[in-house]
Formats: sequence, structure tokens, C-alpha cells
Amino acid sequence: MPTVDEFTREQQDRLLEELNDLLRIPSVSTDPNHARDCRTASEWVADHLKELGCTSVELKASDTHPVVVADGPVQPGKPTVLVYGHYDVQPPDPLDLWESPPFEPTVRDGNLYARGATDDKGQVFSIIKAFEAVSQGGSPPVNVRFLIEGQEESGSGILFGLLEREPELVDVDVALVADTPYYAPGWPAVETGLRGLCYAEITVRTLKGDLHSGLYGGVAPNAHETLVQILSQLKSPKGRIKIPGLYEAVARPSKQERDAWASLPFKQQNFMRHEVGSRELTGLTRYSVFERLWALPTLDIHGISGGFTGEGAKTVIPAVASAKVSLRLVPNQKEKTVQRQLKRAVKAVAPKYADVSVDFIHGADPVLVDATGPYMTLLDDAFREIEGRGIVPIRSGGSIPIVPALGQKGAPVILSGIGLPDDGLHAPNEKIAIDQFLKGVRVFGRFFQKM
Amino acid sequence: MPTVDEFTREQQDRLLEELNDLLRIPSVSTDPNHARDCRTASEWVADHLKELGCTSVELKASDTHPVVVADGPVQPGKPTVLVYGHYDVQPPDPLDLWESPPFEPTVRDGNLYARGATDDKGQVFSIIKAFEAVSQGGSPPVNVRFLIEGQEESGSGILFGLLEREPELVDVDVALVADTPYYAPGWPAVETGLRGLCYAEITVRTLKGDLHSGLYGGVAPNAHETLVQILSQLKSPKGRIKIPGLYEAVARPSKQERDAWASLPFKQQNFMRHEVGSRELTGLTRYSVFERLWALPTLDIHGISGGFTGEGAKTVIPAVASAKVSLRLVPNQKEKTVQRQLKRAVKAVAPKYADVSVDFIHGADPVLVDATGPYMTLLDDAFREIEGRGIVPIRSGGSIPIVPALGQKGAPVILSGIGLPDDGLHAPNEKIAIDQFLKGVRVFGRFFQKM
Repeated sequence: MPTVDEFTREQQDRLLEELNDLLRIPSVSTDPNHARDCRTASEWVADHLKELGCTSVELKASDTHPVVVADGPVQPGKPTVLVYGHYDVQPPDPLDLWESPPFEPTVRDGNLYARGATDDKGQVFSIIKAFEAVSQGGSPPVNVRFLIEGQEESGSGILFGLLEREPELVDVDVALVADTPYYAPGWPAVETGLRGLCYAEITVRTLKGDLHSGLYGGVAPNAHETLVQILSQLKSPKGRIKIPGLYEAVARPSKQERDAWASLPFKQQNFMRHEVGSRELTGLTRYSVFERLWALPTLDIHGISGGFTGEGAKTVIPAVASAKVSLRLVPNQKEKTVQRQLKRAVKAVAPKYADVSVDFIHGADPVLVDATGPYMTLLDDAFREIEGRGIVPIRSGGSIPIVPALGQKGAPVILSGIGLPDDGLHAPNEKIAIDQFLKGVRVFGRFFQKM
Repeated sequence: MPTVDEFTREQQDRLLEELNDLLRIPSVSTDPNHARDCRTASEWVADHLKELGCTSVELKASDTHPVVVADGPVQPGKPTVLVYGHYDVQPPDPLDLWESPPFEPTVRDGNLYARGATDDKGQVFSIIKAFEAVSQGGSPPVNVRFLIEGQEESGSGILFGLLEREPELVDVDVALVADTPYYAPGWPAVETGLRGLCYAEITVRTLKGDLHSGLYGGVAPNAHETLVQILSQLKSPKGRIKIPGLYEAVARPSKQERDAWASLPFKQQNFMRHEVGSRELTGLTRYSVFERLWALPTLDIHGISGGFTGEGAKTVIPAVASAKVSLRLVPNQKEKTVQRQLKRAVKAVAPKYADVSVDFIHGADPVLVDATGPYMTLLDDAFREIEGRGIVPIRSGGSIPIVPALGQKGAPVILSGIGLPDDGLHAPNEKIAIDQFLKGVRVFGRFFQKM
């Protein structure tokens, strides 16, 4: 039987071709027009796990965005590892900034470009292939349960419901989530915290219908102007979010954790120029970059619609304007509390002449994860063998809504992936480094064997 | 020979059918995709004027948006009236708010609904039909020169060029412009002033490319947030435009003119609820509604693009955001000066980390028009015969860029149309009242005969 390393080396072309098949499915869960594609992706994953010898492969809890639940061959007496991942992806917009089409996987300079390449199809597929590598001969060294969902990018509502009804699904020894990147090339990481999310749409109506700015400009309230005035009052130019009460629940990281972050290799100028791609870093600059990214709440505007944005010059006074905005939340904020705070803050600054609504369309609580324990040590050993360097504890500024529920029966949850910070997840030209994908197969294969 | 009134009564079905043919052509001049439709509309108008007996009908100065120049049969010794109008229309967006398709003219409750019904196809066509009515037999009572352009909604650049090269085109006795409405039903009006326009696109770039708000939220400058901060600083919540120097050139209307406006029938609550459709009137409320609409500059936001505005929840930090905005200008402001002032004001409040550009895409100087003189009296008489009420002098908050150039050879310019204030020009469900259209044929026919 080939070793995991031999398997990876010999089969790498096939592994990438299989991954490409999955990446070609435009399984955008936030867009109802792609519901059928999400179903197709779930079936692809389920069929694939069946072929690899999984028993009791099921599509659960939804017709359009089902959770794929699959168990590997039962190995009595062996521990059980839960592998969590998601087959859904972010929308590919703006399409014109992609160098190759988002759902036609393309290799350039050792990278595989496609929507979902790193978030999360490529990452979870590296674990699936690690499972295949250690299952040659039919007897994997560990019990593996896959829980691959299709709504991670839209709140994981279906999986939340499933785990409430069937909590035994997460009655395992350890949960592995490969949906986060290395700290830097050569620096594998474990995430000890994730920010939460509160995603809202703020809609302003000032008029029964659009008006001509020549005829009514000067007296008719403009919905965009009103929205702009509201949004400008939610954050100071210095980056402080002006939502009353928002910072009250924020727990500052311990001095020990902040010191650990301060010792990470980090070149701020380099990060700013080449990773962020800006001339300044903004936000609450009296805090470190890591604290701003991992331990402080944020407020971002994602887009504003209404009025006229076509070619040319239309002189309309818009009756309706709406903004998509979101806050990232940090321990110990609660999504529900922040929803109330945001709604109250918007209503407080809204002028009386406007109808203003705040609708919440996605969210997650923040989470802290204990990054110690025997399984952690095994994964650390696996990374040391491949990278010559163990895992560093960091946090992530992103959100994985389901993480708290994965640990609800007491299993430690390990958040450790093989993406790189410049993978461009959620952005145009998302990619995974092919070398990192193959390392993932080798690392997670070793992890299974060590268990 | 039938009188003008008989002609109008007997031929009205045919007149409306002809107007419908013109309204079906989607001649949106601000959209390059409709360049061919603009050409088609110009040919339709030219062919129609030929059929009515015009000599020397020409399409001048442009292949795509030509100016239709046509002279009626020469009547030696008679005065010459220049009829100005435009065959181009505003974009029909937002399409989903139209009760019937914008380019399928539809009659409901005595109104004809279509983009361009009142602005300006329906209005200029009422003068063309008045010309037909008084030309029965081949000898109209006056020399008529038509100057029908295709770029009124996008700055009239082609016609400006033509009139610079051929100023003799406006060497006439009087110019008639039917592109403005009555003051109110039953209240014909002449416009003694038009606001100008300065239409700009403000674009902000803060990042090389879009980023994931989870990974970079807290340090990455957000283009929409920056744009919102800039826009919010251009106007106070009380309606004062905060562009340094902007109000310096504003000439307040005379006490006499303001008193005349104050004596117009006007119910502010009614205007606000049923015409504007809002709960409050905004702007500089220490000035009267008429002064705010006709004699004070405005700043309106028309739309904001960039980022994510699709279905669902995409957590992107936008790299680029841009806003379409415009100012309406009043005597004695100059478009060029206001362009400089706006650009300087935007740059002054833009943060250093952002690349900010201000591009100007449309504009016009404001204009004051003398509304006295013998031709004015003739038109006043014509309206009195039809409406039982003469013309009231008002101003318009809108802009007709070419008006000053029409008077450059000394001809008085009369701005007096037959639309109604609720025609919804530039908005969805634009209409013309069929009764007003037919009144136009009768009034302008009388006007030609009286000359």
C-alpha cells in the first residue's frame, strides 16, 4: 500500500481533476437562482463519498441545500473525527474583474483559480482525499464522519436546525474544520477565535415615487441623501462605530494572547501594500492591526442600490435607497443584541420624513475555541513533519456560524486549514495554491493515521 | 378650409396615432446603446416635416443624433418663428415601476402614457400639428423654422456646435420653446427663468481590489464608507450646500418677482402630499417653496454604484464606489465655476488614502428670459381664447441647455408649453393629458395665425 505521500504524489492529477468537477458547479447559496446548483453540488459530494467507501451517505434536512452526512467504514474502538466543510460558495460578482471565469477552474503559476477554490471546496476536498489516502484497503485508521453543508455563506440555518433535532451527529471525539488559512506561507495556524456577523439591509423611502430633480430639487427629500446622512452617522471618520452600547460587551484579549500576536512575523507596510492594497490602514489605529482584525467589531457598507446608476446622466430624485451593511462581532457580543442596537441607532438618526427599515439577512455569534488538548498535539505533529514548523494560535476575523454547535456535545473543535492569506476568498480571482492543497492531503492523512 | 379648432376636432385620432409612432422609438440620448434609435427618431421627424410641406429639410451636424432643421413654405414679408424642441428622451429606468411599457404608448383616463409623452415629443408635436393646421392649402400665415435636436437630455453639445458654426439659423423674429408645463391645470405659464445644471460622477477608490470584510474589516478602507463620508459633508442636514463659494453668485429674485409668485394659487400641503408625495418638504425652509424650486441651487444624489447589490449577503469591502450627483444652478451662477467649486470641495474633504475623481457628464448655465414684448402678447391672447385665462410668469427648476444660444441673434425666446405639473417627466409613467395636447394644437395654431 502506498503511503499518504506516495498516494498524493502519484494521484495528484486525478485529485485536481476531481476538485475541478466540484468547482465547476456554481453553488452560490445566497442567491435563490442557484438553488438547483447547490443541490447538484450536494449530490456530487455525496456520490463521491459513497465511491470512497462511506456507508450511510445521506442528504438531510433540505431539498435544495441539504447537509451531506456520511460515515466512513466503522472501526470499532477507534476515535471518531467529525469533518465539517461546506459545498456552497460566495457570489462571484463583480464578474468583470475575474481573469478567468469563476466557474471554469484555471491553473496559473501553480495556483488553481475558481470561486470556492479555497472557501471551502478546495480545503474540505483536501480532507476528503486524505480520507481516501488512508482508506486504501478498506480500513481507515479512524472513524470519520463528514458533515458538509450548503449554507455556510448564508447563515447555516438548515444545519443549525438539523443539529438541534439530531445533536448525536456531533457526539464525536474531535471536530476538524478546514475553512481558515495559514497565518502566512510556511506558518500553519489554528484559529482560537472567530468573529461573528450581523448582516443587515437598511432601506429608506422618502417619496411615493421618483421625481425630476429639476422640477422638485430643493424641496423633495432625496432617499439617497437621507441614507448617506444616516450611514455617515454610524461611524466616525476615525473608525469608531457610533452605535450606542456596541462596545460594552467587547472583551479585550488577554495580555498573554496579545503578546503572542505581537511575536508573529508581520510587516505592516508589506501587509498594507500587497495584501490589503491600500495607502493607509484605517479603523481604531490606537489598537494593533491584529486586535482590529480579530478582537474588535467592525461596520462595513457592502453596496447601495436604488436611483439611477446606468449609463449617462439621469436627473432623478430617488424615492427609495437601500444599503447592505454588516458588523463583524467579537467575544462577548451577541448577534441578537447587536441587531437591536443597530436598529435603534438607525432609527435614532433617521429624519422624521423618511420611512426607514432595517432587515437582517445573515448572522452568527462570535466564538472562542480552546486550542489545546491531545488531538491538537497530533495535528501539530503532522504539520511539523510537513512544514518543519508547528501550529501558531491566531484568530480569524471571519465567521463560521456553525462552529459553536459543532462543539455542543463536548468535542474539541479544531479550526485549521491549508489556505493562504492571499487566496482572495469572497473576492474576484479566488484561488488555492496547488502545493497547499496537496500538503493538506498529506497533513490530514497523517493526522488520521496518528489518531 | 377648416379652422384650427375644426381641424383639431376632426383629425384628433390621426394626430394621436402619429404621435404614438414617434413615442414608440426609444430615443434615449444619454445611452450610447440607443444611438441608432435617436437616428431613427430624427428621420421620423424629418420625413414628417417633409410631408407637411417643409422645404430644405436637413439632418445636420451628427450621424447619430442629428439636428432636424426644416423651413416651412417661404411667406415673403411675414415674420419668422423658430420652433425648438427635442426628439430625445430620458432613460426609462426603473422599468418595473411603469404600469405600461415606456415605449408602448397607452391611454388611461384621458392620458397618454409613454416616455417622452410630455418631454418633449408630445409638446413639440402639438406645435408641428398646429403648423399643419394653419398650412392647409399650402400658405401658412407665417414663416416657421423647426430646429428639433436629439441631445437635450445630454447637454445639447451637437446643437451648440451647429449654432456656433451657423448662427444665422437663429436669425429669426421669435423663438418658441414648448418644453415646460402650465403652472397648474387651467393656468398657462411662461417661464422667465430656468435653472442650470452641473452633473458629475464622483468616484472613490480605496483598495486595489475588493476584499473580504471578515479577513480585512477593521483595517481596510471601504470605498463606500469613504464616499458616504464625502457626500455627507457636501450638504448640511438642514439643506445648506457646503460647497465653499457656491452661494456667492446667487442673485435673489426681485421683491416684485417674489410677490408675483406669492400671489399664485398654491396649497403647500396639497403640493407636498399629492405632487411631491412626501411627509415633509426639505431644503432651506426659511425660503418659500417657489424660491427653493426656482431661485436656489440644489444638490441631489441620483445613484451610487459599486460593491455588492445583488440578492443575498455578500460580505465584501468594496474597492471602488461612485455616485452620480448634480447641482441645479440659478442666476448668476456659471456651470464652469460650479464645476471648479464642486471638485475643490470634494477634494478638500476626501481622505488622503483615497483616489477621488470628479467627472462632469452633463450641464447647462442658468438663464433668465424677458417675458414681455409683442409676440408674448399674441401668445397670451391665444391662451386667453382657449383657457379663459392668460399666461402667468413663473420660473422652472429644470434646465434647457440651449435656450441662451437660441436668443443669441436677438430674438426673444418664449418658453411656454402645454404639459401639466403632474406629467411625471423623467419619472416612470410619464404622460401627457390628451386634452392638453389638443389644446396645444389650437393655441399654437392661433399664435401662428395672429402673427
